[in-house]
Amino acid sequence: MTSRTVDKTVAANPEQRRREEELTAKVVASFDGADNERLKLVLQSLTRHLHAFLREVRVTEEEWNTAIEFLTAAGHITDDRRQEFILLSDVFGASMQTITMNNEAEGEATEATVFGPFFVENSPRIDLGGDISGGAPGQPCWVEGTVTGLDGSPIPGARIEVWEADDDGFYDVQYTDNRVTGRAHLFTDELGRYSFWGLTPTPYPIPHDGPVGAMLAAAGRSPMRASHLHFMVTADRYRTLVTHIFVRGDALLHSDSVFGVKESLIKNFTEQPAGTPTPDGRELGDRPWARTRFDIVLAAAP
Amino acid sequence: MTSRTVDKTVAANPEQRRREEELTAKVVASFDGADNERLKLVLQSLTRHLHAFLREVRVTEEEWNTAIEFLTAAGHITDDRRQEFILLSDVFGASMQTITMNNEAEGEATEATVFGPFFVENSPRIDLGGDISGGAPGQPCWVEGTVTGLDGSPIPGARIEVWEADDDGFYDVQYTDNRVTGRAHLFTDELGRYSFWGLTPTPYPIPHDGPVGAMLAAAGRSPMRASHLHFMVTADRYRTLVTHIFVRGDALLHSDSVFGVKESLIKNFTEQPAGTPTPDGRELGDRPWARTRFDIVLAAAP
Repeated sequence: MTSRTVDKTVAANPEQRRREEELTAKVVASFDGADNERLKLVLQSLTRHLHAFLREVRVTEEEWNTAIEFLTAAGHITDDRRQEFILLSDVFGASMQTITMNNEAEGEATEATVFGPFFVENSPRIDLGGDISGGAPGQPCWVEGTVTGLDGSPIPGARIEVWEADDDGFYDVQYTDNRVTGRAHLFTDELGRYSFWGLTPTPYPIPHDGPVGAMLAAAGRSPMRASHLHFMVTADRYRTLVTHIFVRGDALLHSDSVFGVKESLIKNFTEQPAGTPTPDGRELGDRPWARTRFDIVLAAAP
Repeated sequence: MTSRTVDKTVAANPEQRRREEELTAKVVASFDGADNERLKLVLQSLTRHLHAFLREVRVTEEEWNTAIEFLTAAGHITDDRRQEFILLSDVFGASMQTITMNNEAEGEATEATVFGPFFVENSPRIDLGGDISGGAPGQPCWVEGTVTGLDGSPIPGARIEVWEADDDGFYDVQYTDNRVTGRAHLFTDELGRYSFWGLTPTPYPIPHDGPVGAMLAAAGRSPMRASHLHFMVTADRYRTLVTHIFVRGDALLHSDSVFGVKESLIKNFTEQPAGTPTPDGRELGDRPWARTRFDIVLAAAP
């Protein structure tokens, strides 16, 4: 891939190529005086890759103007409730790549995925087996599992934050009535076990009425996220894990708009017909429900 | 440079490397369905270079959040009068690289440089030898030259737009009183000659009270532009030329904040003591003045 890139950037004539290379070198050198070595490294690398991109595609002035207008529109739609630049990072897989790099693979440690914009501090605390839905519409889903270290030893008292969209595809914070639904935190017991009632996850689109949505449409891509349930797991002396679980069989698993799906995070959500006895004796009347298991393995803190 | 980039992106362990490469490949493949082949090529190339950058510098989550906040601030300061994303493009040399690529080197054709944000349509027309200053403060400067084709043949009737900052470093449009100063257009005579009175160019900073200015400061870079005078030259059957001329000896020639300087565009501005007779007999009393020559060569239209 890299050698192809280099071949493409060879301009048609030597003088033209000299001018382009000299320019890139001048911009790189302009950061030589930065006192902060990390900033210097980042800005010089960004310069090289930005120029390599521009030269590889031979961007036209009209296209570059379009890019400027795109960023301007993204800036103008962004406010306290809407963050178009995070969406942009998400749909190019930049958020996921950053998460991936900062959660280095370690044996069987559970894989991380994108944090997303819908986590809220100070969620309600529930007991083991409690209900996170807060009355949000959706199919009840029993979720259980363990939290262990890489050596299999249980982690008691691990804090588990869970949050998810309701059956209409919205998180509580997307409503304007200050409701708190579909989110809670709980702690593992002395054997590292946890369980709670949530909602069977359903798919929903990322906000797509702005420039990022227009770009996805132009590129023939869907704004839909695969159905998922968010987890953040923290425990002393362990690396914090931010992840989701996904629903095996979901048609969107291979086209998640933010590239959050990892094979290891796809779980069986087993449908239970109405009347099937529940694990904790909860009465669900004529409602079907589902159950899943997610055993979480934490890496040691760095 | 490219092989070094590749080496750096090799993550510490094979499983980690596999995860990172698989993710990039998934994002690239997500654009496979784009109907517009050009859009597909651009977005896939952008994805590869963006991911290569992130992996090369091993960006941290905190750094990526800082990048998102930077773009957000750039979006919020941008309005009808201020374009922070163009400044951003300028200080990374992306504007200049785009200009360079879209004005392919052709023999002795005059080199292009950045357009800048201060061109205005419908400038006043002046006769040959007229004054573009409109009363703006600054040292009078006689500018003369010819416009010819690559074969040396004169181009009569070429339209020359010229614009520049005043001695305080501001263009007319940066004032709020609707003044029209430091800009005009004129036409070459039957021998392709032109001449006018302007102002000896002086240096000024790009707007640096926003995030781009903060980044330049953090990187130890100056926001100053080298002194220059803008030209745009149009003539039937010739490629439009957008360029500047720069002042030989200007201390900022090697640190122009937007990388607009080309060796071929640096001109002698010869200082003339007060009392030196002017080319057109204009009386300047006790004021010193300057003169320069800029012979312009246009490439044929593509």
